[in-house]
Amino acid sequence: MKYAAPALAALAVAEPAFAQEAAPDAVGGGTAYILNTLLFLIGGFLVMWMAAGFAMLEAGLVRAKNTSTQCLKNIGLYSIAGLMFWVIGYNIAYPGFEGPGLIGMADGGPIYWMQGVGEADVETGYSVASDWFFQMVFCATTASIVSGTLAERIKIVPFFIFVTVLTGIIYPVVVSWEWGGGYLDAAWGFSDFAGSTLVHSTGGWAALIGALILGPRLGRYGADGSVNVFPGTNIPLATLGTFILWLGWFGFNGASQLAMGTVGDVSDVSKIFVNTNMAACAGVVVAIIATQLRYGKADVTMALNGALAGLVAITAEPLAPTVGHAIIIGGIGGILPVIFVPLLDKLKIDDVVGAIPVHLVAGIWGTLIVPWTGDATFMGQLVGVLLTMVWVSVASGIVWFILKATIGLRPSAEVETAGLDIHEIGVEAYPGLANQN
Amino acid sequence: MKYAAPALAALAVAEPAFAQEAAPDAVGGGTAYILNTLLFLIGGFLVMWMAAGFAMLEAGLVRAKNTSTQCLKNIGLYSIAGLMFWVIGYNIAYPGFEGPGLIGMADGGPIYWMQGVGEADVETGYSVASDWFFQMVFCATTASIVSGTLAERIKIVPFFIFVTVLTGIIYPVVVSWEWGGGYLDAAWGFSDFAGSTLVHSTGGWAALIGALILGPRLGRYGADGSVNVFPGTNIPLATLGTFILWLGWFGFNGASQLAMGTVGDVSDVSKIFVNTNMAACAGVVVAIIATQLRYGKADVTMALNGALAGLVAITAEPLAPTVGHAIIIGGIGGILPVIFVPLLDKLKIDDVVGAIPVHLVAGIWGTLIVPWTGDATFMGQLVGVLLTMVWVSVASGIVWFILKATIGLRPSAEVETAGLDIHEIGVEAYPGLANQN
Amino acid sequence: MKYAAPALAALAVAEPAFAQEAAPDAVGGGTAYILNTLLFLIGGFLVMWMAAGFAMLEAGLVRAKNTSTQCLKNIGLYSIAGLMFWVIGYNIAYPGFEGPGLIGMADGGPIYWMQGVGEADVETGYSVASDWFFQMVFCATTASIVSGTLAERIKIVPFFIFVTVLTGIIYPVVVSWEWGGGYLDAAWGFSDFAGSTLVHSTGGWAALIGALILGPRLGRYGADGSVNVFPGTNIPLATLGTFILWLGWFGFNGASQLAMGTVGDVSDVSKIFVNTNMAACAGVVVAIIATQLRYGKADVTMALNGALAGLVAITAEPLAPTVGHAIIIGGIGGILPVIFVPLLDKLKIDDVVGAIPVHLVAGIWGTLIVPWTGDATFMGQLVGVLLTMVWVSVASGIVWFILKATIGLRPSAEVETAGLDIHEIGVEAYPGLANQN
Repeated sequence: MKYAAPALAALAVAEPAFAQEAAPDAVGGGTAYILNTLLFLIGGFLVMWMAAGFAMLEAGLVRAKNTSTQCLKNIGLYSIAGLMFWVIGYNIAYPGFEGPGLIGMADGGPIYWMQGVGEADVETGYSVASDWFFQMVFCATTASIVSGTLAERIKIVPFFIFVTVLTGIIYPVVVSWEWGGGYLDAAWGFSDFAGSTLVHSTGGWAALIGALILGPRLGRYGADGSVNVFPGTNIPLATLGTFILWLGWFGFNGASQLAMGTVGDVSDVSKIFVNTNMAACAGVVVAIIATQLRYGKADVTMALNGALAGLVAITAEPLAPTVGHAIIIGGIGGILPVIFVPLLDKLKIDDVVGAIPVHLVAGIWGTLIVPWTGDATFMGQLVGVLLTMVWVSVASGIVWFILKATIGLRPSAEVETAGLDIHEIGVEAYPGLANQN
Repeated sequence: MKYAAPALAALAVAEPAFAQEAAPDAVGGGTAYILNTLLFLIGGFLVMWMAAGFAMLEAGLVRAKNTSTQCLKNIGLYSIAGLMFWVIGYNIAYPGFEGPGLIGMADGGPIYWMQGVGEADVETGYSVASDWFFQMVFCATTASIVSGTLAERIKIVPFFIFVTVLTGIIYPVVVSWEWGGGYLDAAWGFSDFAGSTLVHSTGGWAALIGALILGPRLGRYGADGSVNVFPGTNIPLATLGTFILWLGWFGFNGASQLAMGTVGDVSDVSKIFVNTNMAACAGVVVAIIATQLRYGKADVTMALNGALAGLVAITAEPLAPTVGHAIIIGGIGGILPVIFVPLLDKLKIDDVVGAIPVHLVAGIWGTLIVPWTGDATFMGQLVGVLLTMVWVSVASGIVWFILKATIGLRPSAEVETAGLDIHEIGVEAYPGLANQN
Repeated sequence: MKYAAPALAALAVAEPAFAQEAAPDAVGGGTAYILNTLLFLIGGFLVMWMAAGFAMLEAGLVRAKNTSTQCLKNIGLYSIAGLMFWVIGYNIAYPGFEGPGLIGMADGGPIYWMQGVGEADVETGYSVASDWFFQMVFCATTASIVSGTLAERIKIVPFFIFVTVLTGIIYPVVVSWEWGGGYLDAAWGFSDFAGSTLVHSTGGWAALIGALILGPRLGRYGADGSVNVFPGTNIPLATLGTFILWLGWFGFNGASQLAMGTVGDVSDVSKIFVNTNMAACAGVVVAIIATQLRYGKADVTMALNGALAGLVAITAEPLAPTVGHAIIIGGIGGILPVIFVPLLDKLKIDDVVGAIPVHLVAGIWGTLIVPWTGDATFMGQLVGVLLTMVWVSVASGIVWFILKATIGLRPSAEVETAGLDIHEIGVEAYPGLANQN
């Protein structure tokens, strides 16, 4: 969503380009190449850092007896995502479609071959390795979302197998439709700047289907309709995770501008920083006020989820809104967990960290509101949401079912009750501290 | 505090400009605009990250029963600061004074309207949104300081109301006097490069007045003059918080150069990085040696506060000192908590995390020592310190008194004894871990 | 290990230059100077952040009763490293050798005098202060490694004295041989891009000799050959530390390109980011699979060490390998802790956090494999490894022995059993949480 910007001297004027498409045209020389690449590198390490944010958020919100498992899952899923996105994912995501298509692959086979030492394809306007790195960390983010919802009751082996398919195939196919220039982009003008749908809803659907197939944690929902709260072990850690994610989101949204080699581009990146920040601020304040009014107490986990939901909501279009728009979009995002966390519990869908309200519901909200400020139609956005829902739900469901039917998804009731850490990992999270659970 | 620097080719020579004034003149083209903006963005996300640092530092130094509350306060105050600095703060801070004034507001009313998509005012030399973001995170820092001192005994609603006034009015007025080009800058040549007084002392005075009005935690000081130590629950978390703050300070001080579009500017940013780092190193070593000599043990919380005090001390002038100067300035900063933490206890002023010695006392020290190396007079610096003291103390005092007289500041003794987490937040910080307090 | 890269317009072609030598020649103007300096600053703050990573990793892997001590050691060693690298270290590391030499010092005496405000030596192509900062944080990393191995049984005063010598003399001498252009570089064409040997093995040898002289923790090894596992207190904290180190490694390896002022340089930095990331990913996956197969459980601490060992392994040559190479190099790195952690226990060498397998063994592996992809000979690499071994072992051994013979290294058995926190630091790490150990 860029517009021509005032440019000086030898710097070329930026052509409008869709965010996260493979080749922004805004290059006017070696300096622009360097600056565009630098944006990917900085954005890339910030989004990589989000892996730590998810790890801390989830480690803080599970019970002590499952914390080591959650830590392992998070560092493992990031690593699998990295490998799979190289082995096959990137070339599915960016297939070089000729006209609308639903699945394809770049020429040269599944593996993405980067350029050699010192080689630089100056026509792309940035280092292809920097772009690959930036795209890879988005892929990992998608997997992180699943990890949170399904915590405390899934064995690590089937979880890692699911992550392998999700990051190698399911997510890249969704990306190909939009950022890869495929069906949603070509036929519907679907708009998803940094991934409210492509990243967050994809993770959210995979998590939701997983939660339905896996079932809730033992003892979570009583036969009489009662809900047992299993409080997280370490709220400061969850708070840290949220701050890490917030920080990483500047890279997530800001670097999705894909260029900062012109005055207009870097000004847009700045605007994205502000809007991203303000949507999160609004999400926090709304969640605090809502829980204070509803429960008489300001629930800290809702404040954290409010920040994240605000961030997810602004992700589909962080550039076009004014600050006022961003505050409204993020603020409405912040109310969604307050509404949907109890609602999921009524439906007996056990989402340990609230990832479905935050990433799926707020992701849909953010995607559908794009036409308010950006260049998209409501129908196009709705088609994008629905197509993603169908594909991710069906594909995830098949994988989950195969895993359930073969190696099984859940540990025995004894293992789940004792905690996965001892049986699955062999390392307790807080020896010398934990005195219960 | 910049001087003309050797510049090459088409890059213009930097004109001397006061740090954090609105418009450095050092632009020589689009590349300089991009680089200046990038400095604000990198500096901005580093200082934003300091919000996490304060949260972890404070969460680590309070008792388990008040930890969730402290987490909520920190993410809440950052969010309020963001909103208020947009609604009114920035336009008070940078009012475009004509001649010396004490309070004003930029044309166009309280709300700061950023530029539209793709718009870039190249005459400023940087994206106005990037500058706003960088200034906003400083505003949040000020509020973080108050949160630490008043922990464990203030209700969240009056706390958040105070933060609203502090970030919307009290802090921006102080900023307007100096970085906004107002009274202190115009009439006294006051010099405060990155905010030893404007940020840290402002937070410190607000915290001190709050502590006086709020009173100490229950049981903290015995009637017989004894001091009960309430040890913090999580020292590694406090250590993490200190490292986060240290990291963020490279953005806090380094990006306060406000430009890196010339060879001279980026060299000065580099020098600031080194001086900032070395002042903190010296603060740590001095605090370790001092506590080892005085108590026979090297107190880790003093080492952490030594780092922070060294950082606060160098903040008023991180560029002009040589490395040797920086070590002395930071090293003396590091001794201040060792002296003032026990002194405050003697005065029965209950400062939970030691924020007053670190931010207020070291901030005054750093401000008054500027004339040793930088371009300022002792009298001008003293006037700046005193004027900030009077304004922040009186304004804060009025707000605190109104809150005390209306909705009240403190929870009941029962709530305070049981811990604020259960009654104010409804979420315990370490369920399954905490076995006392 | 750089090669000439395609460059555009007025940007000069990069001359081949050894990584981390003092003066890359690839400057074509003020913009290149700014960008090169910016690379050092970003790389510098990322590597500085690794100090927090080591602190968290070690704090998470020691027992509760020694955690405050570990926090103090980590912030203290970083601070000492900063001071010593300025007082003497840098000028030993970069002595300006004329021909091969084994020890020397730059003209002008031990202290490194940076340039004044606004001064910039444009012929170097970057700000000398930014280079110094970047080199300093590497020095601190070396000391962090020692801290982990020797945890829980060394008094803080002798530890800090050792760090003073290590960072002031032992490490800088090793650096002078290679990055300083000395013996290993001139006579053997030794190649160590970012420090598998210079940083990680140096720390590892110092740690190993320390562990041998210090002996194991009380009760760690039974007289009957049994090994008592002392589990770490806080696995999420150790996980956080690993993620921090991984993040910091992008600066560690990426900015060791030493320049991004040309299209070729920034493309190489991007490639280094990818290779660094993928080596770590492979290390994690290999460690998970290996422990799952060997023990039937996927050991989370091994996964963390697998990431770090993969990172250490790729550090000697992160640019020349293809992604496939990087995965193999990192993957083999990841298996090393799985093999060597139990092996060290058989030898009754007590390495609390597994730093010797991770930093020393993987560092040797990474150094010796350089000829596979990079420009080096196996013999040259072997000489580099052996010379480093001899120098660091002998020099460290002498310092450790002197300390042992004078002020003593270990606390009394009573103090060690009670935990160092109470007696050495006076501040417990988790009051209100810890209920045993």
